[in-house]
Amino acid sequence: MTRHLHLNAFLMSTGHHEASWRLPESNPVANTDVAHYQNLARIAERGKFDSVFFADSPQLIGDIGRRPAGALEPTVLLTAIAAATSRIGLIATASTTYNDPYNLARRFASVDHVSGGRAGWNVVTTAGPEAAKNFNLADQPAHAERYDRAAEFLEVAYKLWDSWEDDATLADKESGIWGDDAKVQPIEHVGRHFQVHGALNLPRSPQGHPLIVQAGSSEDGKGLAARYAEAVFTAQQTLEDAQAFYSDLKARTAALGRDPSTLKILPGIVPVIADTEAEALRLERELDDLIKPEYARRQLAKTLRVKPEDLPLDQQLPSDLPDEDEIEGAKSRYTLIVTLARREKLTVRQLIGRLGGGRGHRTFSGTPEQVADAIQEWFDAGAADGFNIMPAVLPSGLEVFTDHVVPILQARDLFRADYTGTTLRDHYGLARPAGRTKSLQEAVS
Amino acid sequence: MTRHLHLNAFLMSTGHHEASWRLPESNPVANTDVAHYQNLARIAERGKFDSVFFADSPQLIGDIGRRPAGALEPTVLLTAIAAATSRIGLIATASTTYNDPYNLARRFASVDHVSGGRAGWNVVTTAGPEAAKNFNLADQPAHAERYDRAAEFLEVAYKLWDSWEDDATLADKESGIWGDDAKVQPIEHVGRHFQVHGALNLPRSPQGHPLIVQAGSSEDGKGLAARYAEAVFTAQQTLEDAQAFYSDLKARTAALGRDPSTLKILPGIVPVIADTEAEALRLERELDDLIKPEYARRQLAKTLRVKPEDLPLDQQLPSDLPDEDEIEGAKSRYTLIVTLARREKLTVRQLIGRLGGGRGHRTFSGTPEQVADAIQEWFDAGAADGFNIMPAVLPSGLEVFTDHVVPILQARDLFRADYTGTTLRDHYGLARPAGRTKSLQEAVS
Repeated sequence: MTRHLHLNAFLMSTGHHEASWRLPESNPVANTDVAHYQNLARIAERGKFDSVFFADSPQLIGDIGRRPAGALEPTVLLTAIAAATSRIGLIATASTTYNDPYNLARRFASVDHVSGGRAGWNVVTTAGPEAAKNFNLADQPAHAERYDRAAEFLEVAYKLWDSWEDDATLADKESGIWGDDAKVQPIEHVGRHFQVHGALNLPRSPQGHPLIVQAGSSEDGKGLAARYAEAVFTAQQTLEDAQAFYSDLKARTAALGRDPSTLKILPGIVPVIADTEAEALRLERELDDLIKPEYARRQLAKTLRVKPEDLPLDQQLPSDLPDEDEIEGAKSRYTLIVTLARREKLTVRQLIGRLGGGRGHRTFSGTPEQVADAIQEWFDAGAADGFNIMPAVLPSGLEVFTDHVVPILQARDLFRADYTGTTLRDHYGLARPAGRTKSLQEAVS
Repeated sequence: MTRHLHLNAFLMSTGHHEASWRLPESNPVANTDVAHYQNLARIAERGKFDSVFFADSPQLIGDIGRRPAGALEPTVLLTAIAAATSRIGLIATASTTYNDPYNLARRFASVDHVSGGRAGWNVVTTAGPEAAKNFNLADQPAHAERYDRAAEFLEVAYKLWDSWEDDATLADKESGIWGDDAKVQPIEHVGRHFQVHGALNLPRSPQGHPLIVQAGSSEDGKGLAARYAEAVFTAQQTLEDAQAFYSDLKARTAALGRDPSTLKILPGIVPVIADTEAEALRLERELDDLIKPEYARRQLAKTLRVKPEDLPLDQQLPSDLPDEDEIEGAKSRYTLIVTLARREKLTVRQLIGRLGGGRGHRTFSGTPEQVADAIQEWFDAGAADGFNIMPAVLPSGLEVFTDHVVPILQARDLFRADYTGTTLRDHYGLARPAGRTKSLQEAVS
């Protein structure tokens, strides 16, 4: 069977370019407009994408002045999208640092139920002290501590999702017995971070477990991904870096006894697409010219742990920046930005332009053929199992990709002509996890 | 202007009678079927109900064998219903004991955004040790402590909902300024239970604040309701008790300086409706005969803090039960059950029948005219501002109420002929809360 790409549509208000909201075509309050997102998901479903995805953090990020700020809570948003679509997968980000496993496991299982098996959870540990301050803490727990909690959080979630066997519901009207007590068991979890008695207050969901997604590329993040993730979103600027990341993560997965093909790696790409390359580059420049550098510089300074005035716009980055080891926040993104700036000898102004397009993700401007070529190159070269498509402008960038790039990928037999299954796991070619009893039976057989 | 009733449809799987799932007409797995609930909400909207409502607790309650167990998380469920309706209000229960205010305030604000201003939150403190054990605790916090936390939780939620002023979003494409920094402020809350920096990561929602609902009738519960609630759901068995509760709660509300008309009191009623009274009573008996007493007795024993074998089915309750003061759980429900059993000299078997219909709520079997009379009597006698309609069987009981009782109430000009507003606050006749600046201006003027 031909190996097929997986495509995820990463949706964000008016698009991933920070100035996209300023375009005449954009609805600048799309960030709270559920109809906008329902429309985007229908476009992606028309394009047979595996899934749509929302980033999230339980904090108000960045400058209110700069770009659309604030977002609908992703599980609520995905539920509204579920009602407007029928096949496409629905992936929400949620933090293991600032949630309780009982509530969150139930919420994702609920989305899985209402969507008929289309839910996925992007597991994040949430970098930065700002979020901690919304949850009774003065500062964030240390990076390693957050990842330790995340691993235990996932173990608890698995136990809760499996606390009902698939056939626990009898619904026997004649005898008057609704459920089989023996097939719904407390989990009695006692760990370092959590004590959770269970069982979950919801029958097992269509997928058994929602799809587990991971997007952190630090050492701790790769460790978590190798163990638990079924799809990984990652920011990679060059083919070589992407190949190295891909083979590293697949090897880590195999080393843990997992079949590496059960983990799909999807680098991000911010395509700016037009009929000609010149027109695409013009559109990209138009967007970059709409960036207000003072906001972007303030954000960059925060990421780099320096003062904005230490970053003159027309000079390169200062040479005395901290090492990744000293960063307790988004470690891999920090290194990616510094490496990008140093490798290409970018001034702060140039770096801001590059980051304004995709916040560290790869940007690519060209014709539909060129975008398809760029995707195929990485796919064929062992750098990707698919792509996290991050249109610079929404909805137009997603429409162009769906109507002009997808048909090329389909014509090359790189991408599905139609959905063949009904669940998100079906789309990603992943098995439905066996329930508790079956797992136990397999363990002793 | 004529005073109108408010009607809320309390939805629960196949109906409020515990044996309703055993009827031939019932879908016994309706508890996880989103289409079932979307259909119910459309029926209630056809009947011009103010709202639909879901009870909830973060624990698996009761015997799996007894009745449909487990439920979709209510904010997810309401979002799915929002997509299938356009006017009816959407009220979800959520616990202040087992949630964080930042996450929960955002989730309700998100439901308010996606529904165009139709969200309500039934604030509960969650009785019982079982829930605590799902959240790292060995036992529940004491009753008074839970209510103290609930009050602070609500104060934090108000601050978060008001952390964006209504006009904070400028969306000025020309100048490139999206939001007005001065109109989005951290809340910097520091209290006994919570430290929350804010601001919320979501612009102010259509209603400003989701409608606040309360359903506990203990002393602490009435105190919380008088201070914060805009609608109160309550279980009252007799007109005299309901009148006493009504005037007590309205007086407490006035004593706090609130206009008592801004708090709507809705006793629960479990109507069993048929063309003749005899037929309604036959249907009620048919349902009661489907109850399996061993499950119900086990549940009753738990509520009363005794062993099941201390409750012989054909004897009255033992005389040496604990006082309400000793109960750390659902205090008022405990007292209601004991009072009902003693007042009517019910055997355990008879008590189980009464509770099987409505778990302590008033049951009423009769013709549509008789049900309308029963509603009007309490409404006219100062016992209710409306009713929490709890059909014994769903969807049929809601259909009958909508098609046969609502028209009688409308003909008597006791209930709206159509919606006149678009938000849940509109339906309940409640003002949209002013934002932060306006509140400050009012405070100094």
